[in-house]
Amino acid sequence: MEKPLILVTNDDGVHAPGIRALFAAVSPLGRAVIVAPERDKSAVSHSLTMNRPLLVRSVDENIHTLDGTPTDCVTIGLNKILERKPDLLVSGINPGPNLGDDISYSGTVSAAIEGTMYGVPSLAFSQAGEAPFDYEVAASVAWKLAAMALDFRLPPDTLLNINIPALPAGEIQGIRFTRQGRRIYQNAIQETFDPWGRKHYWIGGGTVHWSGGDNTDEQALRDGWISVTPIQLDLTNHAGIDFLQKHWRM
Amino acid sequence: MEKPLILVTNDDGVHAPGIRALFAAVSPLGRAVIVAPERDKSAVSHSLTMNRPLLVRSVDENIHTLDGTPTDCVTIGLNKILERKPDLLVSGINPGPNLGDDISYSGTVSAAIEGTMYGVPSLAFSQAGEAPFDYEVAASVAWKLAAMALDFRLPPDTLLNINIPALPAGEIQGIRFTRQGRRIYQNAIQETFDPWGRKHYWIGGGTVHWSGGDNTDEQALRDGWISVTPIQLDLTNHAGIDFLQKHWRM
Repeated sequence: MEKPLILVTNDDGVHAPGIRALFAAVSPLGRAVIVAPERDKSAVSHSLTMNRPLLVRSVDENIHTLDGTPTDCVTIGLNKILERKPDLLVSGINPGPNLGDDISYSGTVSAAIEGTMYGVPSLAFSQAGEAPFDYEVAASVAWKLAAMALDFRLPPDTLLNINIPALPAGEIQGIRFTRQGRRIYQNAIQETFDPWGRKHYWIGGGTVHWSGGDNTDEQALRDGWISVTPIQLDLTNHAGIDFLQKHWRM
Repeated sequence: MEKPLILVTNDDGVHAPGIRALFAAVSPLGRAVIVAPERDKSAVSHSLTMNRPLLVRSVDENIHTLDGTPTDCVTIGLNKILERKPDLLVSGINPGPNLGDDISYSGTVSAAIEGTMYGVPSLAFSQAGEAPFDYEVAASVAWKLAAMALDFRLPPDTLLNINIPALPAGEIQGIRFTRQGRRIYQNAIQETFDPWGRKHYWIGGGTVHWSGGDNTDEQALRDGWISVTPIQLDLTNHAGIDFLQKHWRM
């Protein structure tokens, strides 16, 4: 049987320690190929670069970079670099969690969304905690979950968003299948002044509150579990169609 | 009773004809305030600018711009520019449809996602067809649907993605509540060469196929209906949690 082919990407750029740890973790499972942004592309969400051509630079046959977004890397990797459709896509390991509504901004998760659109089973990995990040535990989790994704199937048109707690291996409770929580930011815009005294706004910081009830990604992580959330491509609120048909009088 | 306050934004920039048509269309319903990107930010998806401060330029008390993404405009508009939480957010009118999986890349739709995260009823408008775009019919549709969104409620944590067919008013069949279709691109990456003979990839073009079954956004539009798709913030595949618990043996 042919060895599994695994596409490895991220949003922090090819030089980030997280992608090197992920590449090393999944390499024993098959042939791993990196296609990643040249530079940090955090918070670019599902951006596509369509206003200019993209040059691929190949470090060797298994490591390729381009000056674009994670989504660019996945679509060019799948269509132009890999010789066949891969068996798995892994994205990360992101320094910092991707939880709740924040996954909508995440380049790490968007790469896995793009892979799923092409029918490739896709996993997004994020390491909770704060710098300096240690990816040793997360890498062993990534190896285990990548092996399971190759062995078992994913739900159709669905990726897995995986967050690993910042705990020693022995203190992690295990794996929990969770749902996406709700995040409420407060005061997440700072004010600053330029050298000419003009006020600018800088998005970031503030305090975060969480809601969303039981079994959320955030709750599982806080309780010391590895959170695995199945995320679907279909964004339709199907019950919402009934709501609109009932309540909106034309 | 206080007049409704309506935030108006887009991803094509403050000078785009589509936002001017939308602003004019909703102005009779209350007080409309534009907070929009200075320049074209198409296909930026839900990107947030966090690596630099953002300067707001105010043309007058109702028109503000900043050198950022649609998501930046919404978060800064809601937190720093508007004096209170608006009653409605409208985004667009985008030149060209936003259908199926493509809405994941769309700045127009992402602005409405950001508004929904803040609890503001949010509508994204797109005009189907090709340049030159005429927004007259779409503007009257935007006026009608914005009025309905103010009168009736939206489903919770849900925005409306609205696509208007490129037809004269008399040939439009009416409004249909739809679900998101599936798009399959083929050959959507072109190859080009720089002056030094190096191959580059340019994302765009190709052919599109649609699937997804009955009552999709794409089908409704093709049949001459205005497509209104309720899009939810929760991306969890809830049935997928059961799937994983059943099939993944730890």
